[in-house]
Amino acid sequence: MSRMRRALFISLICLLAGTAAAAGGKGSPLDADEQAIRAADATLLAAAAAKNVERIASFYAEDCAVLWPDSPPRMGRQGARDAWSEAFKEPSISVTWHTEQVVVARSGDLAYSRGYYDETYDENGRAMHAHGKFLLVWKKQSNGAWRVAVDVDNPDGPAQPTRP
Amino acid sequence: MSRMRRALFISLICLLAGTAAAAGGKGSPLDADEQAIRAADATLLAAAAAKNVERIASFYAEDCAVLWPDSPPRMGRQGARDAWSEAFKEPSISVTWHTEQVVVARSGDLAYSRGYYDETYDENGRAMHAHGKFLLVWKKQSNGAWRVAVDVDNPDGPAQPTRP
Repeated sequence: MSRMRRALFISLICLLAGTAAAAGGKGSPLDADEQAIRAADATLLAAAAAKNVERIASFYAEDCAVLWPDSPPRMGRQGARDAWSEAFKEPSISVTWHTEQVVVARSGDLAYSRGYYDETYDENGRAMHAHGKFLLVWKKQSNGAWRVAVDVDNPDGPAQPTRP
Repeated sequence: MSRMRRALFISLICLLAGTAAAAGGKGSPLDADEQAIRAADATLLAAAAAKNVERIASFYAEDCAVLWPDSPPRMGRQGARDAWSEAFKEPSISVTWHTEQVVVARSGDLAYSRGYYDETYDENGRAMHAHGKFLLVWKKQSNGAWRVAVDVDNPDGPAQPTRP
């Protein structure tokens, strides 16, 4: 290859790379990130259903912030461990959620998921139900795994008895 | 300029552009985004202090989600308008907040800010105070302005009288 052709070839590759970077990976890389977050979210949900605190905490970033109602912020993975352990102190509690939306930054390093949660538990022998919304901020770690950086939620209103 | 030199020149420019894209603007562009968000946040705070609902709503993205406690999600800029109007129905209410952290995606299109809020209001002639934490997701709009895409908060505990 002549030097000029080589230079043109390099130009073309760089131009394509630049265009791809400018497009922000709007094609499959972004979809791959959303899929990876949805997969992590599904595994986290399963760990919450199994009340496996260590497994749950492993989905939180080391420097995470857990911002749950009626408590000061709990910081770091230990904060996540504490928050979930405290929730599971009530043995009747059951938590589930539905993720409605996942939005990923073009750079694929930051994202959020937003959705709804349902909690049921017994209070003085009465089955109670709380419904609310949540937001999780996700950060891609240096190993490529998505982890929760911020976890925040609140209820739509006071918990209600499941039966009148 | 010879064709070869021109090709080499284009290569160099593309390479520089690619490198800058790969670095994700970790230098001044990111700082500029953080500064722009902090400036928007400060103006939003001033609009909240002035109880100027239209001005407040102008800082929310058209497709925003307002996730406040004790209410279902309020969607869109009209949802933001409704949420703030409802809060200001209580004439004694005063809201302020302190933004502790701003994190911007490398691509400069998505960010979040996290901090603490304080609310005071009168309840049956008694001055009350509520303290909590918030998270705002910011999205850069097509005109380059940062707007709130998600607004979520919750209290650290029940509101307390400011005097025992």
